[in-house]
Amino acid sequence: MVYKKVTLIGKSTESFDDAADDAIDRATETLDNVHWIEVKELGVELATVENREYQAEVEVAFKLED
Amino acid sequence: MVYKKVTLIGKSTESFDDAADDAIDRATETLDNVHWIEVKELGVELATVENREYQAEVEVAFKLED
Amino acid sequence: MVYKKVTLIGKSTESFDDAADDAIDRATETLDNVHWIEVKELGVELATVENREYQAEVEVAFKLED
Amino acid sequence: MVYKKVTLIGKSTESFDDAADDAIDRATETLDNVHWIEVKELGVELATVENREYQAEVEVAFKLED
Amino acid sequence: MVYKKVTLIGKSTESFDDAADDAIDRATETLDNVHWIEVKELGVELATVENREYQAEVEVAFKLED
Amino acid sequence: MVYKKVTLIGKSTESFDDAADDAIDRATETLDNVHWIEVKELGVELATVENREYQAEVEVAFKLED
Amino acid sequence: MVYKKVTLIGKSTESFDDAADDAIDRATETLDNVHWIEVKELGVELATVENREYQAEVEVAFKLED
Amino acid sequence: MVYKKVTLIGKSTESFDDAADDAIDRATETLDNVHWIEVKELGVELATVENREYQAEVEVAFKLED
Amino acid sequence: MVYKKVTLIGKSTESFDDAADDAIDRATETLDNVHWIEVKELGVELATVENREYQAEVEVAFKLED
Amino acid sequence: MVYKKVTLIGKSTESFDDAADDAIDRATETLDNVHWIEVKELGVELATVENREYQAEVEVAFKLED
Amino acid sequence: MVYKKVTLIGKSTESFDDAADDAIDRATETLDNVHWIEVKELGVELATVENREYQAEVEVAFKLED
Amino acid sequence: MVYKKVTLIGKSTESFDDAADDAIDRATETLDNVHWIEVKELGVELATVENREYQAEVEVAFKLED
Repeated sequence: MVYKKVTLIGKSTESFDDAADDAIDRATETLDNVHWIEVKELGVELATVENREYQAEVEVAFKLED
Repeated sequence: MVYKKVTLIGKSTESFDDAADDAIDRATETLDNVHWIEVKELGVELATVENREYQAEVEVAFKLED
Repeated sequence: MVYKKVTLIGKSTESFDDAADDAIDRATETLDNVHWIEVKELGVELATVENREYQAEVEVAFKLED
Repeated sequence: MVYKKVTLIGKSTESFDDAADDAIDRATETLDNVHWIEVKELGVELATVENREYQAEVEVAFKLED
Repeated sequence: MVYKKVTLIGKSTESFDDAADDAIDRATETLDNVHWIEVKELGVELATVENREYQAEVEVAFKLED
Repeated sequence: MVYKKVTLIGKSTESFDDAADDAIDRATETLDNVHWIEVKELGVELATVENREYQAEVEVAFKLED
Repeated sequence: MVYKKVTLIGKSTESFDDAADDAIDRATETLDNVHWIEVKELGVELATVENREYQAEVEVAFKLED
Repeated sequence: MVYKKVTLIGKSTESFDDAADDAIDRATETLDNVHWIEVKELGVELATVENREYQAEVEVAFKLED
Repeated sequence: MVYKKVTLIGKSTESFDDAADDAIDRATETLDNVHWIEVKELGVELATVENREYQAEVEVAFKLED
Repeated sequence: MVYKKVTLIGKSTESFDDAADDAIDRATETLDNVHWIEVKELGVELATVENREYQAEVEVAFKLED
Repeated sequence: MVYKKVTLIGKSTESFDDAADDAIDRATETLDNVHWIEVKELGVELATVENREYQAEVEVAFKLED
Repeated sequence: MVYKKVTLIGKSTESFDDAADDAIDRATETLDNVHWIEVKELGVELATVENREYQAEVEVAFKLED
């Protein structure tokens, strides 16, 4: 039984929590058996968006099928 | 006058803020003179819980009695 | 075209998101062309304030005028 | 000629060496041209397994086909 | 529900695995509900021991009683 | 909207810039919407190549399709 | 034979050496078999004290009784 | 005699060297007594520019006037 | 209420403590409301000075006026 | 009395322990008064060897003669 | 078979690539069997040189003779 | 012109400054053209010495002869 980790960056106009949830939502839609995530970086983008865009870079760990 | 630091991991089904508060609540219940905390890691557990469990690993600094 | 980064610490009695927003508010009041921020540290102060004070240390990147 | 790196977590009830081998076995079964691995983290899980489960998080570098 | 982490250094004349086990043995003897450990440092002492002494510094995470 | 990051190692017999470009070339050939890259490591291989081989390990961030 | 590490922050109005000694004094008063300490952070507090307060955060390693 | 350090991000369409030079050019135009710079991050922007934009984040150390 | 941090390098022919004090002296002469400093690097210069020059790179945190 | 540290990379076809021992064997053959070693990196080479080659990069600390 | 690593700082008035090459040139003149180098730091000196001096601190790995 | 760096650990029964000086003294006795040192670690040994032994691990940079 082996886990794999992939790195995603989620976004939200509301909060860092929502940005992390955004990445988790994406992960659980496309991957089975997501077990946990680790937050690697938090940031806010201002220049290329209308308002503030909260961002959370996370590592997503999921179990590979045997 | 010397401070000591201990490492706690708080949890919440709501947000990273609540997870940090969870650890601070525990610390202030059992320790006098908690002065500050530092966030070391943020993560989310999915596999062993019903929904998402937000986690905050924090270092809690408190003043030792002389 | 060159960017400069400065380090600010924002505060809030509510949440880490608000603490980051506090620093961004200050940056955008006094600096033109703020492009993004990166969160460097999160913490909570308890000893010198009435309740919990959430703090976010952030690096603010802004474009220097030519 | 370009390499790609992926992150896997191998497991073993015996040792850290076996946990790393577990990740390498999985990598070589599904990827051609695995060139080297780097150990990123070692740990042991106790709560959700019967005995001790040694874990090795590794980065696996393999050559992409042209 | 809150976890606490403590730092132990286990030792063995045989291997790094045994040194980590030594720390885990000690933790499980004196603490309830040990959930996982993370290896922080590996080293070998030669000067103050007869042969080679393998050492593993680990963080032990255990669940605090409510 | 979510970004994903992958890790590539590009190579060049000329310079670190060309090694980074080599990885970017590969990324843009096989991935849509590459937004930015971050350099993680620079090195030079001498033993298994005829001359010096400059290497750049980079993280490539690209936008996932909704 | 297992070592444990705890984190203390010593203080002094004179120097970083005295701040480290302050933490070691406290450790040796309350713990048997302190073997070594490692300096983790040095700082100076100015706002909440009359003059400058030198601070040394140290990890204290001591031998646990069998 | 005291030095101060500021963080700048230079850019170039050609190379990392030119990106660092871009930041140094800016620093030496507006600051006296620039003594050295340290490279903190290298990256390449692709999404918001026509071609590849090499970026170098550098710390610039300069002597403050007495 | 927002804090700002700036990076200074103080110097002394005597000790690391004096080098840190040198940076703090400069900070308190030119900035109001300096609250604390954190030591980032310690070093000694020998080549371009007559004797040994102790150096302390510090981050100075001060409260911005509202 | 001064210590010096050198960096060696040991190898083994069997295990990480043996790879560390390989570096220690070399160190103790050519250096007097080796006091301790610290593991810096663990890895496995696959491409340029017949089977798996476990590698341990270690820092070796030894006492210099007066 | 054991590798050793030494740390060199190469220099160039032209580029970071040339600075790394400068260190590699030195290494290959005085050491047999240089296998690879890793870049640890890049910087530019301005104060004590006529123009800009690009510097690359590298770790050089070479095979020790049996 | 190339620099080389070596790692030494100096000791003193008095202070961290003296421990760093101890390493510098040794370096300047046996090496020409020592240019600067960087402090990597500070610690205090208690178990194997009569009193407290302050230790400073430093990197010593010196110019190699052409």
